[in-house]
Amino acid sequence: MAAIRVHGSTVSTAAMRVFACLYEKELEFEFVQINMGAGEHKQEPFISLNPFGQVPAFEDGDLKLFESRAITQYIAHEYAGKGTQLIIPESKKMAILSVWMEVEAHQFDPAASKLTWELGIKPMFKMVTDEAVVEENEAKLAKVLNIYETRLTQYKYIAGDCFTLADLHHIPNIYYLMGTRSKKLFDSRPHVSAWVADIMSRPAWLKVMAMKH
Amino acid sequence: MAAIRVHGSTVSTAAMRVFACLYEKELEFEFVQINMGAGEHKQEPFISLNPFGQVPAFEDGDLKLFESRAITQYIAHEYAGKGTQLIIPESKKMAILSVWMEVEAHQFDPAASKLTWELGIKPMFKMVTDEAVVEENEAKLAKVLNIYETRLTQYKYIAGDCFTLADLHHIPNIYYLMGTRSKKLFDSRPHVSAWVADIMSRPAWLKVMAMKH
Repeated sequence: MAAIRVHGSTVSTAAMRVFACLYEKELEFEFVQINMGAGEHKQEPFISLNPFGQVPAFEDGDLKLFESRAITQYIAHEYAGKGTQLIIPESKKMAILSVWMEVEAHQFDPAASKLTWELGIKPMFKMVTDEAVVEENEAKLAKVLNIYETRLTQYKYIAGDCFTLADLHHIPNIYYLMGTRSKKLFDSRPHVSAWVADIMSRPAWLKVMAMKH
Repeated sequence: MAAIRVHGSTVSTAAMRVFACLYEKELEFEFVQINMGAGEHKQEPFISLNPFGQVPAFEDGDLKLFESRAITQYIAHEYAGKGTQLIIPESKKMAILSVWMEVEAHQFDPAASKLTWELGIKPMFKMVTDEAVVEENEAKLAKVLNIYETRLTQYKYIAGDCFTLADLHHIPNIYYLMGTRSKKLFDSRPHVSAWVADIMSRPAWLKVMAMKH
């Protein structure tokens, strides 16, 4: 049994976030597939790992974690010496990185994840897209991306001059949205578009994509 | 000019979160009141501090931050030696603390902040409460509090045996909800109720309350 185990699904944006982080850090891990269609994430043994019944859950030896962004922060700190440096070991720069991790979680993700659901996931399961939800959330995402466009004229990455967790956390939703009509929101903003091209081509992310096949 | 300045409003749950943290750490700060009724948070000079136009914004010397949970994490790390220890300087315990900070942000806050808005804030401004939103979010919050009740039979505080940022982040929404009919969701769960009584009686929080007068 590997020391690091991730319980989840390659369809889940939250699980993909953790896989991308592990590949960036060049860490070995065991992937334990959870059949979400059969509701395995809402039953034991999974809910002993995460009482909220959401993937992913994570183990590193005796340590059991859930919530994807808590898992990635643990990995980035605990394995700071391995692979890509995803945090910044200086308090004021780390504070700026925290700001942009919070922006991803509270500004970008609420709109982006609703669009991922309506335009990326629902069609996979022959469910009907709610056009009103799409319209509302494309408008919200456009406002967020206007601020990102300004930010990315000043910095190559969202938290500064290096790729960090703040960029990585965005990748799974952007992956889905690149396959939908919401792609236009990214393509129409040149600095956002260059940033997307950069972060989506990282070798660690290509390894996450390879897990789907 | 004080080194630490907080731009915000004593009505804002996010600003209250930062005030509570500063009082826990026994730090001096200057409060710069933003007139949200007049839309000052959507204009210069405020939007140079936070392009998303939301309170609070924070300055510590040259460092400028926004997003309340990024600010509290900065304060807790940067001033670790002052006042209450709000983080845990051990990586696996800190990881558990991160999990419960994410739970507050992604499980508790979405439901609690909608109830705060509908039942706590709207009546202050003679706006009409949306009963369907209340019903939906009371059901969501009840599920979250069921998990908290189990958790709090094992630990005195949400992330373990000590009061931490994970508890502190909950206080402002709970403060509003204690003045609404949603109070019953907390009162009906004995361990949650004892936890609420404990965290709401902290001297640092009473100082935040005193700012309102």
